[in-house]
Amino acid sequence: MKYQRIYNFNPGPAALPLDVLEEIKASFLNYAGAGMSITEISHRSKLFDDIINDAVDRTRRLLNLGADYHVLFLQGGASLQFSMVPMNFLTGDMPADYINTGTWSTKAIKEARILNKPIRVIASSEDRGFSLIPGNIQANADAAYVHLTSNNTIKGTQWPVFPDVGRVPLIADMSSDILSRTLDPAPFGLIYAGAQKNIGPAGVCLVIVRKDMLEQVPDDLPTALKYTTYAASNSLYNTPPCFAIYAVQLVLKWLEETVGGLEQMEALNREKADRLYRIIDQSDFYRGTADKGSRSMMNVTFRLPSEELEQAFVQKALENNIGGLKGHRSVGGCRASIYNAVTLEAVDVLIDFMQTFEKQRG
Amino acid sequence: MKYQRIYNFNPGPAALPLDVLEEIKASFLNYAGAGMSITEISHRSKLFDDIINDAVDRTRRLLNLGADYHVLFLQGGASLQFSMVPMNFLTGDMPADYINTGTWSTKAIKEARILNKPIRVIASSEDRGFSLIPGNIQANADAAYVHLTSNNTIKGTQWPVFPDVGRVPLIADMSSDILSRTLDPAPFGLIYAGAQKNIGPAGVCLVIVRKDMLEQVPDDLPTALKYTTYAASNSLYNTPPCFAIYAVQLVLKWLEETVGGLEQMEALNREKADRLYRIIDQSDFYRGTADKGSRSMMNVTFRLPSEELEQAFVQKALENNIGGLKGHRSVGGCRASIYNAVTLEAVDVLIDFMQTFEKQRG
Repeated sequence: MKYQRIYNFNPGPAALPLDVLEEIKASFLNYAGAGMSITEISHRSKLFDDIINDAVDRTRRLLNLGADYHVLFLQGGASLQFSMVPMNFLTGDMPADYINTGTWSTKAIKEARILNKPIRVIASSEDRGFSLIPGNIQANADAAYVHLTSNNTIKGTQWPVFPDVGRVPLIADMSSDILSRTLDPAPFGLIYAGAQKNIGPAGVCLVIVRKDMLEQVPDDLPTALKYTTYAASNSLYNTPPCFAIYAVQLVLKWLEETVGGLEQMEALNREKADRLYRIIDQSDFYRGTADKGSRSMMNVTFRLPSEELEQAFVQKALENNIGGLKGHRSVGGCRASIYNAVTLEAVDVLIDFMQTFEKQRG
Repeated sequence: MKYQRIYNFNPGPAALPLDVLEEIKASFLNYAGAGMSITEISHRSKLFDDIINDAVDRTRRLLNLGADYHVLFLQGGASLQFSMVPMNFLTGDMPADYINTGTWSTKAIKEARILNKPIRVIASSEDRGFSLIPGNIQANADAAYVHLTSNNTIKGTQWPVFPDVGRVPLIADMSSDILSRTLDPAPFGLIYAGAQKNIGPAGVCLVIVRKDMLEQVPDDLPTALKYTTYAASNSLYNTPPCFAIYAVQLVLKWLEETVGGLEQMEALNREKADRLYRIIDQSDFYRGTADKGSRSMMNVTFRLPSEELEQAFVQKALENNIGGLKGHRSVGGCRASIYNAVTLEAVDVLIDFMQTFEKQRG
């Protein structure tokens, strides 16, 4: 394998396209002939303007975003968004609706409550151990927004189709499936996504916000916590995380120019997931943990007959150059995260390994 | 010049040690034999624990920090600290004292006021155009803290000695001179520093906080905005900016092992600054903008006889592989930022250029 790299199924930070890593490496001491590393150039330079503007333009094209959306790059991860969303958009008595599909939704709900904001949990799959996405969502017409988590990394579930909430804006944490499939942006007032799963390294959070949403942002918020601050400055209010934005730009370029766009990316992601779930479904040894109708294309979660076998599986995989298969510490089991940059080849190598392991230990 | 790199006098993001850049480049596709890029490894892995723990330990050694201090790595830059400091430490009626020495102090004051916190500006050099550091500071004994900016990048001033504020904790924004000189940490309750000038790339903010300060942090703050959150998790509440922390770790290693520590770093920085100020003081063509007793060792600000000459100076320098000499857009003029990673050789090249330019155009 090239450069002795492993097959990386990490849940995030996660695999990045090898093309992208090679380009970063090649230019690392002298970016674009400027005689400086990308880490040494000014965020106020034409060089960096070109990077961030290209990243914005590519995001717009890939997601069919019209001029009514801002594309922003913030710091603090999705975890800071859990607070910024209610701080910016729940400013009067108007309540918001939240849907609880797992650990990250639960955290978003908790942060809104810490701020004493009027929120309602209108649907939850907690009583089913978050093993599925709840159906038949009824949002309240008076809600400022409906918040959901599009993909649940820990439990391995994903919204197959987003709920119809009428004219209420959807706000989605898409950290773990952003740009993994085609999207109709129209229902969304805001989308946020930590980059470190599908679109870049850790340290930057993509925020897409519809311009009319910004009218409600109160003046008296801290400047660094207002979406309007970043919208007014093309994300350059203060020094942004330049390296992470640069890496995201290269991933977006790879998505457009090498993969060919989101339809192609989605087809490839679906094929990867289908192959893995097929092996799991054909086997009595491996058992998927998510309900079939709610299965994630990004995080394939499964159990083996015992915890001992699970430990041996993860260990033996690593000896075979296959990394990152341990389930989240809160639930145990195994998980193969197959984000955009994980190749079909890597999935086939994993499947081969799974079949061999089952034969030896099943 | 190696790899056709320029002599980089950028104000931030700024030059990094070439050794550090070369090490990042060399390991970029396969970090520590793990078969993954540093951007692809888990923040919950032993590999990353070793990185962040080493960065913490080196910071402790370099700054003589006892067990009574936490060393944390946050996102959002110094700009978010402007808000986090009063959110965490001004929770009752107790006021805080601020000293205003320039643009960044002014922003810190503005953010505390946006939060409606009781603050007093006890000293300011605004009436002198921020060209000096005010003397004879009288802090109030009832203050929760005294906030200052240790180095002012735009006006080229720096505290030569920190004021004696008795038992009131000092809080300092050291973004532009952190680890550039030796420090007695004892008077400081909290120090914060965006990394992108002296210690790393943009995207991470070093926060050093004395443990007793954390007792006042209110429970009802957003989790991502409480210092206690990061203190309790070794900065791993959520996915941290792994790449930026790794780069900081390498810079700290370079500071300890190549430079030899902060005494050596300070001596070198003083020599660099002395050489530049000497040329300016000997010349009628170049004119320093900061009062002599308040001059910065980090940012040497100066004017030429006309704006036309200043533009020609910056342009001609770039043609001679010397970059980053334009003054901040808010004040104009010229500025040579000579942070830790700027070599004595680079300063001598700049001095040669300045003398040639003066001969040709003076």
